Amino acid sequence: MREIGIGLLGLGVVGSGVYRLLSENGEFLARKTGVRLVIKKILVRDPNKRRALEVPREILTTRAEDLLQDPEIEIVCELMGGIEPAKSYILRAFSAGKHVVTANKAVLAEHGPEVLSAAEAAGRGLFFEAAVGGGVPIIKTLRESLAANRVRRITAIVNGTCNYILTRMTEEGLPFREALAEAQARGFAEADPTLDISGRDSVHKLAILATLAYGSFVPAERIYEEGLTGLEVPDIVFAREFGFVPKLLALAREENGQVEVRVHPTLIPEGHVLASVRGAFNGFLLEGDFVGEVLLYGLGAGAEPTASAVVGDLLDAAHLILSGGRPGPILFRENPVRLKPMEDVVSRYYFRFSAVDRPGVLSNISGILGRHGISIASVIQKGRQEKGPVPIVMLTHEAREADVRKALAEIDQLDVVTAPTKLLRILEG
Amino acid sequence: MREIGIGLLGLGVVGSGVYRLLSENGEFLARKTGVRLVIKKILVRDPNKRRALEVPREILTTRAEDLLQDPEIEIVCELMGGIEPAKSYILRAFSAGKHVVTANKAVLAEHGPEVLSAAEAAGRGLFFEAAVGGGVPIIKTLRESLAANRVRRITAIVNGTCNYILTRMTEEGLPFREALAEAQARGFAEADPTLDISGRDSVHKLAILATLAYGSFVPAERIYEEGLTGLEVPDIVFAREFGFVPKLLALAREENGQVEVRVHPTLIPEGHVLASVRGAFNGFLLEGDFVGEVLLYGLGAGAEPTASAVVGDLLDAAHLILSGGRPGPILFRENPVRLKPMEDVVSRYYFRFSAVDRPGVLSNISGILGRHGISIASVIQKGRQEKGPVPIVMLTHEAREADVRKALAEIDQLDVVTAPTKLLRILEG
Repeated sequence: MREIGIGLLGLGVVGSGVYRLLSENGEFLARKTGVRLVIKKILVRDPNKRRALEVPREILTTRAEDLLQDPEIEIVCELMGGIEPAKSYILRAFSAGKHVVTANKAVLAEHGPEVLSAAEAAGRGLFFEAAVGGGVPIIKTLRESLAANRVRRITAIVNGTCNYILTRMTEEGLPFREALAEAQARGFAEADPTLDISGRDSVHKLAILATLAYGSFVPAERIYEEGLTGLEVPDIVFAREFGFVPKLLALAREENGQVEVRVHPTLIPEGHVLASVRGAFNGFLLEGDFVGEVLLYGLGAGAEPTASAVVGDLLDAAHLILSGGRPGPILFRENPVRLKPMEDVVSRYYFRFSAVDRPGVLSNISGILGRHGISIASVIQKGRQEKGPVPIVMLTHEAREADVRKALAEIDQLDVVTAPTKLLRILEG
Repeated sequence: MREIGIGLLGLGVVGSGVYRLLSENGEFLARKTGVRLVIKKILVRDPNKRRALEVPREILTTRAEDLLQDPEIEIVCELMGGIEPAKSYILRAFSAGKHVVTANKAVLAEHGPEVLSAAEAAGRGLFFEAAVGGGVPIIKTLRESLAANRVRRITAIVNGTCNYILTRMTEEGLPFREALAEAQARGFAEADPTLDISGRDSVHKLAILATLAYGSFVPAERIYEEGLTGLEVPDIVFAREFGFVPKLLALAREENGQVEVRVHPTLIPEGHVLASVRGAFNGFLLEGDFVGEVLLYGLGAGAEPTASAVVGDLLDAAHLILSGGRPGPILFRENPVRLKPMEDVVSRYYFRFSAVDRPGVLSNISGILGRHGISIASVIQKGRQEKGPVPIVMLTHEAREADVRKALAEIDQLDVVTAPTKLLRILEG
């Protein structure tokens, strides 16, 4: 049987999952596909580290050259994460004529054009299903299955850690810090969760999805980014009174040739299909001009689901090698996509004002909103407090982000307003 | 720009959708992929028929040879449906060295091995994403994305017509006939809905999915088939009292090397993710040993979603031609899959007995169940009727199908039992 040699860069959570999948299902896959995937070498920092996994000592190495220069290795599988040295290894792998499978969303989102050019120049395949959505086949779906469509919208929950935290805050009323600590204790959140809760991880993933959907590189730094840190339990409670639940959404929309891309906490109707994506799950709602709405849903992280995606890619790469074909296009158009500035985005909004309880305050606030062309859909003003400020909660009709920012800056300077206004965007219908 | 010539067999609902998609998005696809898909000829029954679609008269033909012998046509796209002449045309297309894209579930489910052998012998690609799930990329997901997994279970709603009917029966209490008439009026059901409501359409689709999942041909005639015709509103009402909703499910399960495949109305818990698949939608819940659970959801039929899948396949076929590669394996293992006889299937059951209202009837029935090793989980016996039989509704613990059939045959012969017992299977946890 034909063997294909694989070099693994990294033996962390995902690397160990891939090793275990190939150990457990390798025979089955060989029978099914007629090709045997063999891990020839693994790059690690410390070959003598004690591991739960039993790996022969002789395939471990600390020198990347041992993989990159091994002629028996046809596919390099990069599972180290982070930009460097991962990016350099990927580029060197292409130079050495190898195909690359990677789960590295940061490299793709921040250096996509460089990596893609290297793959094309070398005539080798670049596979990255595991970079977004763990085991959910979102990359192949966008890249191939829905290729005939103009993608109108992507509405996605792409970060399982944030979704777990939000689910616990919403369903149990836990404060943010407590929900985060629980997510860490249960292994859903990293020791340093900054990338997740800042929204950065979601931005990286959206950059990749939007790039595939619109066929042209969407740089991460052009995506509006707002994470979970500003979200407070009272806003979740008020939102539910209006029939909404909060989700950290990655959104892309195309209209009139302009694309908006943004990541922020968003209120969605309780009956929305993404409202039922709970805990550590990911959900991707895609809308194409012919296919209509398609939802993909599953575990977006973890050793085993991610290994499923990585080995799926290894099998695709193996087929490419065996078939003697050239890799498919990554669908990059010549003309760059036109991104809409965040200031021009139109949305409905939720506001929570903190104001002293005094006659005329509400008319003061609504007057400022009116002058900026923002019309109010509904208001909750909670009964008088013993003392101190009262929350005034408002939902607006559609308004422009730039107008909202100007209005809130004015409102927050009023003497009667005691704290910065809280703002949440509402998913359009 | 490189052109690829396509021949369409059929210009019905799906064929018209494909023609329209290529008219509307053709330029966009050419820019994106660098290749132009051009429909060179279309086989129709009557070229002079008035059509909503504007198609140049000169590309219409009534002779299949005009497509199959045209050297400019590299891909034949079969959208006629039915077994013959569709199957013969597919085989002749392979003989003529063409790639084939088809939406024909019947041909694949009933003549899969013959068609696959022809494709392999010719070294040409066979693409059939549109055969199951309309625009939902279930075929590619099973065939490629989840290829690394052993698929433990498929639990799927594959027939939008039946799902529409069941949704209306469940949510509005409509009787079957009325819900069917509504589905026909709204264009979800064919004038002759027999294939849908008999369960046969779902069986065809399950045959294809199970074949891909288990890598070996699963013949349609080995799949247990039960459609909607026996389902009555009272059973839906009782089921809801127990917290269940009815769905027509296509089920495949692998355990200990044996695979069970069955299509029947099934009670699923109201909170189950498939319970939220309503109306004409399809939903596919896949469980793999590494990926865990993945759900795909979308419109499973209709001109536009199906055209999305067909043109996605055309792009894949075009890439295969341009890349100069050989088509991928369809994952057929040598060893045939071992199918579990329906008699050995273990499930929980819902029974509705019709019995005269007389002391001792319940003990009589439960005695027979007990003797066949069937244990009762709960019972509803509705208050006395003015006259006539009373319904006794029972949920069982897990029981073997063969035991259930024997017990019900005995029970239905009791003098006090006035009508055949109604049976529904319950989805395992």
